[in-house]
Amino acid sequence: MKKERTEINELGEFGLIDLISKDIKLKHKNSVLGIGDDAAILDAGNEYLLISSDMLIENVHFDLTYFPLKHLGYKAVAVNISDICAMNGTANQITVNIGISNRFSVEAIQEIYNGIKEACEEYNIDLVGGDTCSSTSGLILSITAIGNCKKDNIVKRTGAKPNDIICVTGNLGAAFLGLKKLTIEKKLFLEDSNIKPELKDFQYAIQRQMTPKARIDIINKLNELKIVPTSMIDISDGLASELLHISKMSKVGINVFEDKIPIDKEIYNLAEKLNLNPLLAAFNGGEDYELLFTISQKDFEKVKDINEITYIGYVQDINKGNYLVTKAGESIEIEAQGWKHF
Amino acid sequence: MKKERTEINELGEFGLIDLISKDIKLKHKNSVLGIGDDAAILDAGNEYLLISSDMLIENVHFDLTYFPLKHLGYKAVAVNISDICAMNGTANQITVNIGISNRFSVEAIQEIYNGIKEACEEYNIDLVGGDTCSSTSGLILSITAIGNCKKDNIVKRTGAKPNDIICVTGNLGAAFLGLKKLTIEKKLFLEDSNIKPELKDFQYAIQRQMTPKARIDIINKLNELKIVPTSMIDISDGLASELLHISKMSKVGINVFEDKIPIDKEIYNLAEKLNLNPLLAAFNGGEDYELLFTISQKDFEKVKDINEITYIGYVQDINKGNYLVTKAGESIEIEAQGWKHF
Repeated sequence: MKKERTEINELGEFGLIDLISKDIKLKHKNSVLGIGDDAAILDAGNEYLLISSDMLIENVHFDLTYFPLKHLGYKAVAVNISDICAMNGTANQITVNIGISNRFSVEAIQEIYNGIKEACEEYNIDLVGGDTCSSTSGLILSITAIGNCKKDNIVKRTGAKPNDIICVTGNLGAAFLGLKKLTIEKKLFLEDSNIKPELKDFQYAIQRQMTPKARIDIINKLNELKIVPTSMIDISDGLASELLHISKMSKVGINVFEDKIPIDKEIYNLAEKLNLNPLLAAFNGGEDYELLFTISQKDFEKVKDINEITYIGYVQDINKGNYLVTKAGESIEIEAQGWKHF
Repeated sequence: MKKERTEINELGEFGLIDLISKDIKLKHKNSVLGIGDDAAILDAGNEYLLISSDMLIENVHFDLTYFPLKHLGYKAVAVNISDICAMNGTANQITVNIGISNRFSVEAIQEIYNGIKEACEEYNIDLVGGDTCSSTSGLILSITAIGNCKKDNIVKRTGAKPNDIICVTGNLGAAFLGLKKLTIEKKLFLEDSNIKPELKDFQYAIQRQMTPKARIDIINKLNELKIVPTSMIDISDGLASELLHISKMSKVGINVFEDKIPIDKEIYNLAEKLNLNPLLAAFNGGEDYELLFTISQKDFEKVKDINEITYIGYVQDINKGNYLVTKAGESIEIEAQGWKHF
């Protein structure tokens, strides 16, 4: 007998997306790529148009007890720009839909928009529209970014080939540690409101959590070096999850090395203080908004001396599976993570 | 001394939007029009690209006690398509951001998407992306529609000129009556769950509330007749509010006639049953998603016999103000409505 009610967590986020999108057929000639990458691709004649959309919901994606409104506005924009970067494109416009309850004052809403406008300034983005409406409970921010890309430069999740080099930008795990520290301090404060939060050592990690940077600098650098990655994705859900996306979409295997994963030295110390494994923070933590990409071996010479790009492994045949080689030389299979929010 | 906290309802929706957008300057050459119309306009070379975004929040915009999930999905798409129509454009793609709590089953989410897909089929739209995330409270749907328009055909809110003819499509007030009836029946049901809702006579009004149609038929008809309206807006907040938008944006006065406002005969009877004024339902009710537009007098001959288009008044000099002439021949000033949701 058919079950009448299936819980969302039985399917998980990606299972749900697969179910929703499985019977969708694109009808328009200019709809080049739909659901399943960092952004949709539309054909705009001489170039591609990129459309990416993300929603941030209070108490799911952010906690206003410690998240300043201005930073929230900034982050909401940056994470959408990051999606356009992940297609090797340039974001130019955003629309902002905001849901606000009457517990927010006009000044509070202005603070959010100050952050939004600061990000627009930094990333050279025009705020061109949106919807302002009331919400019965928390704050909701839903942003759509519109970008463009030369047709020859577009990078999807599907192009990785065996023997390609796997690279990441910046360093990983800091945003997760920042979040952990903030939630710990919140808990302590709720237990005893006389306790002052000790955040001094965690400035960098907290900043990574609150105001992540979209890596347009890397996109510009790759463009300058005339390197078009074979595949790319931004790291929003943790390195493991993104590696598995590349694996699944490109139909390839992955081999990465623990000792190559870029983790800031400071993050090792902080992780110890919080009794956390820094590798797990990098692998499963998420919200770093760094770029994960693969390049042909021929391009490796050009990137190997760039400070902000780290080689972490290589692409292999799909039959060889997806593995992390630990510092001890052991190969551990990379596994899918569940949906954190449910 | 400066007040430290301003409540949102002191400013109202439009005051808040004015405040947020007052210092926004568009930097990109291809950002043709930003905040302040039904959709943003981007220059895509040979044509204009139109971007419109709307958010629907549970218990603000809809009540799931009587709103079927499939209809909700349909409506969320239709109201965005309607915004693209209001620019005289054609919508081609949408992205859907959805926030869902775990009180929704997978089957319930599929019902929403069945409605979304039905609207995509009806309006020839590709669903190309979006974000699926969990919500701590209700259901949230944030949709962005992407459309296009020949450059010569674009219609904004700013082009109405004195002596232009003011037209509306279809009929007005039905969606509001449908909503009223549903909320009354809900109240009765909550008081006594043995009461069966009496909705028979209200089928049309309820259908107008639940599955409003985006008037692409009218856009196609105008195109066929080679009529480009001088200004246009879709009626989401009630005729009064939209007339005042045209007035403000085009810097003109408005004169409309009560006896010309198209209200379905059935709606008169229903309004009487609910003890409501049908004219107020049309003027201040909203959610009809009909089109309000102005045309040059020279085009009047071409539209005057079209069933679905009604002449309701004319544009006048801004100094003459905005008036409704009642059946008794009295001129009443059209006044701004507040933000209903706060």
